[in-house]
Amino acid sequence: MRKVDAVGYAETFLDRFAHFSRIGSTGDGGVDRVEGSQANGEARRQLVRWMKELGFNVSVDEIGNIFGLLNLAGESAPLVLTGSHIDSQPRGGCFDGAYGVIAGLDAAAAVRDRLAKQSKASSANLGVVAWMGEEGARFRPLMGSRVYTGARTLQSALDGKDMQGISAREALAGIGFLGTDTAPKLPVAYVELHVECGSQLEVRKKSLGVFTRWWGAHKVDLTFEGKTAHTGPTPMRARQDALYAAAQVIVAMRALGDSAEIGSLHTSVAKLEVVPNSPNVVPCGATACVELRSLDPEVIKRSYDHLLACASFAATTARVKYAIARDDLREPGKFHEGLSQLAFEVAKCNGEEAVAVDTLGGHDAIMMTAVCPTVMLTVPSRAGLCHHPDEWTSQEDLERG
Amino acid sequence: MRKVDAVGYAETFLDRFAHFSRIGSTGDGGVDRVEGSQANGEARRQLVRWMKELGFNVSVDEIGNIFGLLNLAGESAPLVLTGSHIDSQPRGGCFDGAYGVIAGLDAAAAVRDRLAKQSKASSANLGVVAWMGEEGARFRPLMGSRVYTGARTLQSALDGKDMQGISAREALAGIGFLGTDTAPKLPVAYVELHVECGSQLEVRKKSLGVFTRWWGAHKVDLTFEGKTAHTGPTPMRARQDALYAAAQVIVAMRALGDSAEIGSLHTSVAKLEVVPNSPNVVPCGATACVELRSLDPEVIKRSYDHLLACASFAATTARVKYAIARDDLREPGKFHEGLSQLAFEVAKCNGEEAVAVDTLGGHDAIMMTAVCPTVMLTVPSRAGLCHHPDEWTSQEDLERG
Repeated sequence: MRKVDAVGYAETFLDRFAHFSRIGSTGDGGVDRVEGSQANGEARRQLVRWMKELGFNVSVDEIGNIFGLLNLAGESAPLVLTGSHIDSQPRGGCFDGAYGVIAGLDAAAAVRDRLAKQSKASSANLGVVAWMGEEGARFRPLMGSRVYTGARTLQSALDGKDMQGISAREALAGIGFLGTDTAPKLPVAYVELHVECGSQLEVRKKSLGVFTRWWGAHKVDLTFEGKTAHTGPTPMRARQDALYAAAQVIVAMRALGDSAEIGSLHTSVAKLEVVPNSPNVVPCGATACVELRSLDPEVIKRSYDHLLACASFAATTARVKYAIARDDLREPGKFHEGLSQLAFEVAKCNGEEAVAVDTLGGHDAIMMTAVCPTVMLTVPSRAGLCHHPDEWTSQEDLERG
Repeated sequence: MRKVDAVGYAETFLDRFAHFSRIGSTGDGGVDRVEGSQANGEARRQLVRWMKELGFNVSVDEIGNIFGLLNLAGESAPLVLTGSHIDSQPRGGCFDGAYGVIAGLDAAAAVRDRLAKQSKASSANLGVVAWMGEEGARFRPLMGSRVYTGARTLQSALDGKDMQGISAREALAGIGFLGTDTAPKLPVAYVELHVECGSQLEVRKKSLGVFTRWWGAHKVDLTFEGKTAHTGPTPMRARQDALYAAAQVIVAMRALGDSAEIGSLHTSVAKLEVVPNSPNVVPCGATACVELRSLDPEVIKRSYDHLLACASFAATTARVKYAIARDDLREPGKFHEGLSQLAFEVAKCNGEEAVAVDTLGGHDAIMMTAVCPTVMLTVPSRAGLCHHPDEWTSQEDLERG
C-alpha cells in the first residue's frame, strides 16, 4: 500500500474499501446493493470515478459490465483481467464481490506504477472488471459473465425479468448503466480475488487460499399448484394445499443434507413464494427454489432424483400438481492447474503458505474458465476485515505474472 | 322477486348480484375486492347508489361501515339490522359476503313495499349494513363489526397497518370511505345471510340452514428468527434457517389436523413470509400464520399447546429463535336460540325444512352476538348460483319478524 500512497492517490485501498462499504449500507455492517437498485447505481458510479482517477480507460458494455483498462503494452498485446462484482444480496456482506473489484483496481494500478518506477516494459495490458448481476438476487445469477463468455445471449439476458416483471434491460437503463461499448477482447488469463464465504481456511488456520475446484450446483424451482378454499370450513381431506406440499419438500431436502457425509452435499430451500398468501385461504400456489451442491456429479444426480421423488410424494399427499419451473445444473470443475500452481509459488516467494480449497458458491470466474485460463485466490471470511496487506502483495505479484 | 319488479326497480336482485359480481372480477368467476382496493371502492360506490335508488338513508361511519336505513316506524323505534360485507380475499368468491348485503337490500325494500301495499304499520325500522374489512386479507379480520360493537377501539383499528405499512385510515381515505357519520344505534336483532362456505348442507341434501353454533378459532402468527448465510459454503449444521423451522411447523400442524377425528379440528398455515427470500441466502426470518379451529374449547387448547411444543422443537432443530407475534383466540359459541327457533318456524311456514349447521369461519354476526340477539341463515355454497327465490322468500319473512 505504501507504494500506492507514494504516487499520491487521494485514498488508499483500505479507505476506498471503507468508503465503498457505506454505499447501500444496511446499518449492521452489511450492504444492500441488489443489481439495478439505486445503491447499486451509486456503487457503479463511484467505481467509475475511481477507475478514471487511477488512470483506467472505462467502458460499459451492453449487459452493464464495467471494464477499466490500462493500456501498457499496445492494442495488440494480450489482456490480463481481474475483477469480481459489486452487486449484493438484499442483506449481503460488504466484502463479497466488492473486495475483488476494489482490490483489483489497486493491484493493477500498483503493477503499472511499479513498472514505471523501474522503467520496465509490460508484455500485457491489465484490466479490472465489475461483472453485472453476479448474485442472482433479482435476475438469474452470473448474468454479466455469462453474456461476456457467450454462455447466454445478450437479448435473453436483457429480457430476463425480476419478480415484479421488470426486465434487466429496464433495471440497467434505470440506473444509467445499459452500456453501448463493445466489451474488451477475451483475456489470456483471468484472476479473481474473493473472500472465502466458507470456513476451510479458518478451520485450517490459514490466511491465503487458492480455489482449485468448484462444487457443482443443481438449482431447481419447484412449483406446486393446488386450489384456493376457505381454511375454516374446508374439510382437511378436501384441501389441495400447495404450501403443505412445499413444506414437506423443505423438510425432506434438509434431512437429505443433514444425513449426508460432512462436506459431500449441501442442500437448501431459501426462497419460497406462496399464492395468494392470505391467512385464511388454502394456498393454491407455492414455488420453492431448491439448491443441491456437491463436488461429486453422482451425488448431485442422486440428490436430484431424491428431490423429484419427494416432490411427487408431497404433491400426492397434498393433492396438488407439481412442475419443474427452472432447472439449472452447473457441473463441478477445476480451475487452471498452471495458474493455480503459479499462485502457490508466488505466495511462497512472499513468505506465505497458500493452501488449496474448494469454492462452494458460484463465481464469475467459473464462467471465465470456459474462455481462458482462470484462477481464484481467497482470504478467510472472518467477521472483521478479512484481507491483509500481505496477501495483497501476493496479488500484485500474481498479476504481474 | 316479482313483487319487487312490480314497483318498478331498474334491476332485479339477480341482475344486481350479477352486476356486482363483475366488480373486481378475476375473470374466472371470482372477485378481488380486498379492503381499500380500487375494486373495493367501486363496489362500495355501487352499493351506495343502489341504497339511494331503493330509498335508503345512507351513512358511512368512521371505520368505513356503510349503513342504509329505512325509517318505517319513527326515530325512537327499534332497529332490525341485516347485512354482511363486500370486501373479499385476493382470489375470493363472488358470493361470500356480497350475497348477504345485496340480498339484504332487496329483503328490506321488499318488506317496506309489502307493508305499504297492505297499508300496515311497522313496529321497527330496517337497516342494511356492509361491514368494513371482514376478511382480514389486508388488515385484521372483522374490523368494522369489532369497532361497531366496541370490541376494538376506532383509533387502534384505523392505525392498523397492512404488510406495506399502509394504515386502514389511509386505505379507507384513499377510496373515499373514511366516513364522518355517527353509526346507527345498536339494533334489537341482527340477521346475516351467508353462503355456507362448507359442505354440511350439500352432504345432507338441504338447501337452507340456520347457523346455530360457531367454531372457535385460535389464530397465531409464529415468527422464527435465524441468521443469513450463503446457502453454498455454509456447513449444514452451522445454518440457522428460519424457513426450515417454519416448514416443520406447517407439516406438523397438517398432521395434527389430518389425525383428528373428522369434524373435530381444522388446522392450517396459509400465509408465510420469508426474509430475505433470496435463492442463495439462508433465511433469517419466517412468519407463519397458523389457525386452529374447533367447536370444542378443550381441543383448541390442546392443539395450541401442541403448536407451541412443535414451534419449540422446530426452533431447536433449526437453531433459531421463535416468538408469538400475534395470538387471537375466538371462543366457540352459540347464536341466539329464540331467533334461530323463529328461523326454523318461518322456513316451515314457507314449506322449507331448515336444518341446524355450524359455521367454521369468522363472521361479523359473531361480533354482533355480544350486543344483540343474532341469527345467521345460510344456503349451500355450490359451484353455481347458490341462492334460490324460495329461500329468499323465507328471508323476507324472517326480517318482517
